[in-house]
Amino acid sequence: MSEVEEVDERVSLDLLKHKMAKFAKERDWDHFHTPRNLLLALVGEVGEVSEIFQWKGEVPKGLPDWKEEEKIHLGEELPDVLLYLIRLADMCGIDLGKAALRKLQLNAIKYPAPNKYTQHP
Amino acid sequence: MSEVEEVDERVSLDLLKHKMAKFAKERDWDHFHTPRNLLLALVGEVGEVSEIFQWKGEVPKGLPDWKEEEKIHLGEELPDVLLYLIRLADMCGIDLGKAALRKLQLNAIKYPAPNKYTQHP
Amino acid sequence: MSEVEEVDERVSLDLLKHKMAKFAKERDWDHFHTPRNLLLALVGEVGEVSEIFQWKGEVPKGLPDWKEEEKIHLGEELPDVLLYLIRLADMCGIDLGKAALRKLQLNAIKYPAPNKYTQHP
Amino acid sequence: MSEVEEVDERVSLDLLKHKMAKFAKERDWDHFHTPRNLLLALVGEVGEVSEIFQWKGEVPKGLPDWKEEEKIHLGEELPDVLLYLIRLADMCGIDLGKAALRKLQLNAIKYPAPNKYTQHP
Repeated sequence: MSEVEEVDERVSLDLLKHKMAKFAKERDWDHFHTPRNLLLALVGEVGEVSEIFQWKGEVPKGLPDWKEEEKIHLGEELPDVLLYLIRLADMCGIDLGKAALRKLQLNAIKYPAPNKYTQHP
Repeated sequence: MSEVEEVDERVSLDLLKHKMAKFAKERDWDHFHTPRNLLLALVGEVGEVSEIFQWKGEVPKGLPDWKEEEKIHLGEELPDVLLYLIRLADMCGIDLGKAALRKLQLNAIKYPAPNKYTQHP
Repeated sequence: MSEVEEVDERVSLDLLKHKMAKFAKERDWDHFHTPRNLLLALVGEVGEVSEIFQWKGEVPKGLPDWKEEEKIHLGEELPDVLLYLIRLADMCGIDLGKAALRKLQLNAIKYPAPNKYTQHP
Repeated sequence: MSEVEEVDERVSLDLLKHKMAKFAKERDWDHFHTPRNLLLALVGEVGEVSEIFQWKGEVPKGLPDWKEEEKIHLGEELPDVLLYLIRLADMCGIDLGKAALRKLQLNAIKYPAPNKYTQHP
């Protein structure tokens, strides 16, 4: 997997899904990737992210006071959550990207943005 | 947010990041979106996904025996995990797409795929 | 289950374990209570606790600014985590109370308390 | 903390709460033990338990096919969840034992046990 050249493009959920599928297939890991196995793996990764944040008290946007190694650590754990999530959705037959766009539309209806013209005429 | 036309395209992490940022800004929610608030929101959504799977015993790939309404429910909860994860990464200054590609490359080194020519000459 | 009188005693893990076992047996729920089902149920309950805390920013000890109904809500969700944890340990054949005491002893060795006489002679 | 003699008694939630409080105080850790820090620590420990179960598929009661070292590992991680939960409840001013008994009573009302005399006259 020498995809260094793709790093600069916009990364799609589909790209990551196909890479994960290929990765699992090449290693004969498909039989491990049942929905509940993947869900527990996802929970494990969320736990690792939580451990990074656990003793820090409130953390401001951008992590201004974090050591470089802590930021690198976080940058290695957050993708694990993403990759297992994408794989879980794939194994459940759910198109995660479409589902996310749909959810954003539902949220926009559920939480309408204040209309500035109405509010400040 | 009338992005119905985009649903058919390949959905990128960047697109979702920008939609989330716009959504939060329009509602004046940025001050809620601190890293630890978002992390706990993510944990809450992972909990909701777990509740869907909790009493089911082992679930095969594709959820063949699930009722349509259960699949719809799952398709509404998985994106919540994704959206909070994307927003968390954004608030931490982490490019989640690049980080995911990098992690896949590290995993490919950590778990080399068996070379079929070597194994079966 | 009319154990109102026991509420004032010191509640042991064994007592709760036996109550959970009786509760499940009376409802013919034992077959639902496999280790991974219970673990996912536990994750679901941790998610519900997280939802209570998610938008609050840092919360001081004792929850001084919380509304009474929020405290009541938390007091209903924290026990769910405990009860599923106790049941999970039981289904795994682990004596949770003994294991907790053992872990505290290991932690005391791993993180020795500063000796005040040595530090401040 | 030389409490070897107590290991054989019924372990109460109060005993563990007091041990945790003493442990934190002796190490001057009270300022770390804010509710959200403890909650994230709890999530981290639930993640570690999940990692033990993640690739196993369905696991029967009693973990019959597990290696001894895996059972020992689980017996070291489950108490961490318990100890942080007890400490979290303490820092929130919630009596976890009483709350658990109350929740069991509420559950008994919510899910009434089938009356055997009525069902099989």
